[in-house]
Amino acid sequence: MFLGIPFSVYYNESYIPLLSSGLIAISVGLFIWQFFRRKLIVKEMSNKDGYLTVALGWIVMAIVGTMPYLFSEAIPNFTDAFFETMSGFTTTGASILNDIEAVPHGILFWRSLTQWIGGMGIIVLTVALLPMIGVGGMQMFIAEAPGITPDKLKPRIKDTAIRLWLIYVSLTLTETVFLMFGGMSFFDAINHGLTTMATGGFSTKNASIQNESAYIQYVILGFMFLAGVNFSLTYFGLKGRFKKIFKNEEFLAYLSIIGMFTLITCGVIYYHTDLKLEESFRDAAFQVVSIITTTGFVSADYTAWAPLLTIFFFFFMFIGGSAGSTAGGVKIVRHVVLMKNSALEMKRLLHGNAIIPVRLNSKAISPKVTYHVLAFIMIYISVFVISSVLVAMTGLDVDTTLSAVATSLGNIGPGLGGVGPLNNFYWLPDLTKWILSFLMLLGRLELFTILILFTPYFWRKM
Amino acid sequence: MFLGIPFSVYYNESYIPLLSSGLIAISVGLFIWQFFRRKLIVKEMSNKDGYLTVALGWIVMAIVGTMPYLFSEAIPNFTDAFFETMSGFTTTGASILNDIEAVPHGILFWRSLTQWIGGMGIIVLTVALLPMIGVGGMQMFIAEAPGITPDKLKPRIKDTAIRLWLIYVSLTLTETVFLMFGGMSFFDAINHGLTTMATGGFSTKNASIQNESAYIQYVILGFMFLAGVNFSLTYFGLKGRFKKIFKNEEFLAYLSIIGMFTLITCGVIYYHTDLKLEESFRDAAFQVVSIITTTGFVSADYTAWAPLLTIFFFFFMFIGGSAGSTAGGVKIVRHVVLMKNSALEMKRLLHGNAIIPVRLNSKAISPKVTYHVLAFIMIYISVFVISSVLVAMTGLDVDTTLSAVATSLGNIGPGLGGVGPLNNFYWLPDLTKWILSFLMLLGRLELFTILILFTPYFWRKM
Repeated sequence: MFLGIPFSVYYNESYIPLLSSGLIAISVGLFIWQFFRRKLIVKEMSNKDGYLTVALGWIVMAIVGTMPYLFSEAIPNFTDAFFETMSGFTTTGASILNDIEAVPHGILFWRSLTQWIGGMGIIVLTVALLPMIGVGGMQMFIAEAPGITPDKLKPRIKDTAIRLWLIYVSLTLTETVFLMFGGMSFFDAINHGLTTMATGGFSTKNASIQNESAYIQYVILGFMFLAGVNFSLTYFGLKGRFKKIFKNEEFLAYLSIIGMFTLITCGVIYYHTDLKLEESFRDAAFQVVSIITTTGFVSADYTAWAPLLTIFFFFFMFIGGSAGSTAGGVKIVRHVVLMKNSALEMKRLLHGNAIIPVRLNSKAISPKVTYHVLAFIMIYISVFVISSVLVAMTGLDVDTTLSAVATSLGNIGPGLGGVGPLNNFYWLPDLTKWILSFLMLLGRLELFTILILFTPYFWRKM
Repeated sequence: MFLGIPFSVYYNESYIPLLSSGLIAISVGLFIWQFFRRKLIVKEMSNKDGYLTVALGWIVMAIVGTMPYLFSEAIPNFTDAFFETMSGFTTTGASILNDIEAVPHGILFWRSLTQWIGGMGIIVLTVALLPMIGVGGMQMFIAEAPGITPDKLKPRIKDTAIRLWLIYVSLTLTETVFLMFGGMSFFDAINHGLTTMATGGFSTKNASIQNESAYIQYVILGFMFLAGVNFSLTYFGLKGRFKKIFKNEEFLAYLSIIGMFTLITCGVIYYHTDLKLEESFRDAAFQVVSIITTTGFVSADYTAWAPLLTIFFFFFMFIGGSAGSTAGGVKIVRHVVLMKNSALEMKRLLHGNAIIPVRLNSKAISPKVTYHVLAFIMIYISVFVISSVLVAMTGLDVDTTLSAVATSLGNIGPGLGGVGPLNNFYWLPDLTKWILSFLMLLGRLELFTILILFTPYFWRKM
């Protein structure tokens, strides 16, 4: 919160909201730390402690993070402030702000920072916690993280996390510089840098990226693409080990999916509208990458091109970026496993139901992991269906309901209909906002981390 | 086809189309039989022969079955006739007929009969072929079929099939009698009897069941419910073994799902419209049962009540009736396994990823079967997504696209939007009709039976 103060000072705005929020956060934090300090040292963390820490951590951050909004009266209402903060820390990017440009710069910086912090948290989570407990087949790509060997897991986690954070920080700064070259102010550039690399999608402009130059759109497009790649692969790329990248099946699928859908979308736009080919391509590529990486920046109204594309973009919301990136959603690797398993299922039927394992990156995946992946996707869909019914009950129409749920659960940002790229989430009933906030958290923490807290198994003594 | 001739004669219509169609069908059949007779006797059927026979059987039936429509010029166009016949044999009930009541009675009887024959075929398929080859976890309920014990499978299949057919025939006749008591003509009664028990949903009336008396609506409602129950359970019920029924988890889930959704739907209708409580209940129960059992009769426009219910009915299309009934769709038992497995997945995470088996009817299901069930549902959803994209490309709007695909794949009949309960499929482009016809076949034959023909594994020599 203190990091926003320089901007407040520079733009002649009150820095009191950020300062007081920060001081309160520190005081409360120190108090809790003093209180629980000894207990934390004494006890080893169990799986259960891990789940609870992560879940509570995100929730507490989302509550504490509302202070700058409330104190500055940029968002006077707690429900709205909580929605905006949760949307930040979960790197979703759905916003309730009607006039973003009227919000003080310091507060806007805090808003972008929530996404960047959320993205940073996700990196630790995916290299450290989730693979250890095996959420939805996450152990699959653990061997791919640099410096991690299964037998020496714990001591290396810190090293790995630091390496990936370094990449995260460097890419954010690089993007900021690139954006400044395109004529963006330092303030706008750093904000878009923070929210691109987190695949967050909060913009400092009301029109998101729609009124920016082609250069700036391409820069953001490029960094969105990078933010959706497994950070371990980017690390290998920076070390010049390109072979490792182009043998990675998730990366290849990511590339193909984006390539294929960009071409189709570009073709449809070019055919249905008056846009020139370059514009059609840029809009298509930007929106396909924005939705698939779950960033959610808007360079054009993707619901206005053609009815066909509305269905396309709705389904895109269920793809998600690469595992090990800051992207949310189902994730490409799970789709790869799903597709391979579906094809193998036919082979199995013809060969007396023998379990033929799915192979990923030339290695056989244990049927158990495949099983977890299928279970994850099924639970994802079940959560989508049940939440849609709940959200529909709060009075929204079909398109708005389905897309609001999909975009929240997938941590994307914009949806269709009433929550489409040109609208925001301001007008939704309070209850809907709470449901969607919960879905953002659920999606961001790979479902299980939260859902498990609602099972009797969790609270039973082992 | 000959069975329709008495109606043609009674109603003073030309019986030539049915007679000539029947004679051609017999001639072609005899010719093929003579030709392949010796080969069939010599060789034992392999799994592959099974798949091919079933798939080709349904396709050939759908082609041959177009003759009465074409010859009578009730449907002069081959695409339309094929769509209608495929919709019949797959017990879907989607129709391209604009004025059903103008079609000669003999032809209408043939139309209803296609559904009844399709339903009969499905009964054999589920007791005989599918469990043997293990499609999508079908072996799960094989132990539940009367007279089948795993070691003595083959000799008993015929007995079982005959028993279930007897139930099928008796229930059809019983319903016919009940409907005649309500004042329906013998012709209308037998037609509705045939299409109810097949969970088909072809009606002889343009307005489907909308203008019928409450008595007739309740009778059809009751028989739709029965048609969606595992026929083996009905068999036990007729023998007085009710304990077996009320210990069957699929049946209990079927009962609860219908009960719960009827109550919710009834509440919403009563709140949002001027209908009285009994009418609200009747419409709710009828449409919930009609969609969940994949019958597709229409007693009221379920898309007109409230936006909330539109989403409800869309999701209902993915439920399906019980396995071992004539109902299509995903089927209740698979949802039960899915839900149980999802809950267990949390338990597994907390217990070091041990595979804790799903239990159904107090028996543990092998993880392999659960795996097949998950794979089935995932492929079902993938087919839904891919087909929706294809159908959208033919120029339909969002609601029409998604519901046309869901209703065809689930063998239901009516959808939403342009293919809603008050519309039909006549106006769709030819290409769309062919895609939907293919989806009906895919859904009816549990996906794998058809999809497997498109894999290289199938055509490779073992």
